[in-house]
Amino acid sequence: MSPNPRRPGSAVTEDARPLGVIAGAGRLPVVLARVDHDARPLAVVSISNDPQPELRAAADVFRHLSVGKIHEMLGVFHDAGATELVILGAVDKGVLFRPKQLDWLALKILAQAKTRGSQSLFHAIADEFEARGFTVADQRTYLPPLVANAGALTRRRLGRAGRRDAEYALRLAREVARLDIGQTVAVKDGTPVAVEAMEGTDAAIRRAADLAGGGIVVAKATRPDHDFRFDVPTVGLDTLGVLVEVEASALVVEANRTFVLDRDELRERADANGLAILAAT
Amino acid sequence: MSPNPRRPGSAVTEDARPLGVIAGAGRLPVVLARVDHDARPLAVVSISNDPQPELRAAADVFRHLSVGKIHEMLGVFHDAGATELVILGAVDKGVLFRPKQLDWLALKILAQAKTRGSQSLFHAIADEFEARGFTVADQRTYLPPLVANAGALTRRRLGRAGRRDAEYALRLAREVARLDIGQTVAVKDGTPVAVEAMEGTDAAIRRAADLAGGGIVVAKATRPDHDFRFDVPTVGLDTLGVLVEVEASALVVEANRTFVLDRDELRERADANGLAILAAT
Repeated sequence: MSPNPRRPGSAVTEDARPLGVIAGAGRLPVVLARVDHDARPLAVVSISNDPQPELRAAADVFRHLSVGKIHEMLGVFHDAGATELVILGAVDKGVLFRPKQLDWLALKILAQAKTRGSQSLFHAIADEFEARGFTVADQRTYLPPLVANAGALTRRRLGRAGRRDAEYALRLAREVARLDIGQTVAVKDGTPVAVEAMEGTDAAIRRAADLAGGGIVVAKATRPDHDFRFDVPTVGLDTLGVLVEVEASALVVEANRTFVLDRDELRERADANGLAILAAT
Repeated sequence: MSPNPRRPGSAVTEDARPLGVIAGAGRLPVVLARVDHDARPLAVVSISNDPQPELRAAADVFRHLSVGKIHEMLGVFHDAGATELVILGAVDKGVLFRPKQLDWLALKILAQAKTRGSQSLFHAIADEFEARGFTVADQRTYLPPLVANAGALTRRRLGRAGRRDAEYALRLAREVARLDIGQTVAVKDGTPVAVEAMEGTDAAIRRAADLAGGGIVVAKATRPDHDFRFDVPTVGLDTLGVLVEVEASALVVEANRTFVLDRDELRERADANGLAILAAT
């Protein structure tokens, strides 16, 4: 057990174990593959309908499985010697309505969940994985370059009225998230314009702009006990596209609790369109 | 000062003073005119674009004024000997953007309001009226037949899952109202589907149904310190029409804090359409 020269305080024998990755759709798993993890091997199970080739290339072990084949999935990690897992990317929840695609372990987890709500399912998954000797890591642990630091993400800044709206929107978004309603709130001139519930962030932003015109301030927040093993709120060029389209004046996210994708392009396009982006604590 | 035989504890000399009514659009002022107030005279200033003939007929003093002529309005009440005022019905707020229609007293009140938000304007109006010797009454005082009592308003009742959704929706609606966001929340199967902000009740209900289909449960609530002098949440056949159209399963309102219009027809149409309406404490 000689100390690892590249990561003080951690042991080589631990680092040598592969990190297990359950990879859904989208960019996050690919970013993980690009980040240097002290040459720690990756054991990847892709559950995306369209597995990312870059991820396959970076993986030491790679399998493509249906999201419902959980027993087989854990078998892959067990055989690879991985005990720490990270779950990244979007998952098709439609499988819940196609029970034939669920193996016995998936069915057991589903039966243990109190409801089919995300939080409830996540907890049932984590409990079952832990009972089998696996831990599920906070997604942020392995994607530090994506985590938003406190401060402005753009050169563009807000004036006094805009800052007031931004603080107010973030306060409301935190309350709305705490109530498990949604994560996004839009404010203009001190008035709450739209609150996201089931319709999703983009639809809530578009509604706010329909009601109040340009100049809205949008905040996105999480509840205090948000489980970052299963979901980290993410902003990227898609969200930016909607904000620019509706001529919003600002986006506020929570520092240390949000992933930012394509940070450089995001900053450039936001600045070019008069949109301020800030991460608040 | 002989005691009033019809209202113990009140004095005839007090009751003989007319009640001042600032009457906006809609049904509430007309209902007031129909309720027996111990034959207390009514001094009415109509600020509706379309003054209700029934109200004119019931009034002992009647004037039709622009909503912006507040000094003249108070002059009418002063001349009639009215010191207690009640403000009822919908008011066209567009006058705020037509400053030429505002007299000096209206401009003074506007200048004293912190913002042009309803709550802020209401407080500035009440303060100025009180400084001039008038009091503004809680709207419920003079419209007791409209106030929702606790319990079911329909024969139709909710099953266990529906009651759970109703309790949850009301709890969320109270939180959302407390945050000054809006008054209406729609829930289905334990999931918050839509939260009203600026779009209004009907639009929030329609969105909820678009997202979740039939069977939604809608709750409407007020913040704990809601000012009933200027606004009492009201349900009637209009709201019912939307709920029936989207095949909602229930409407929950706050007992003692909500007006119910057309109660008999409301019950009949709700029952015929499988909709439960309840007033909760």
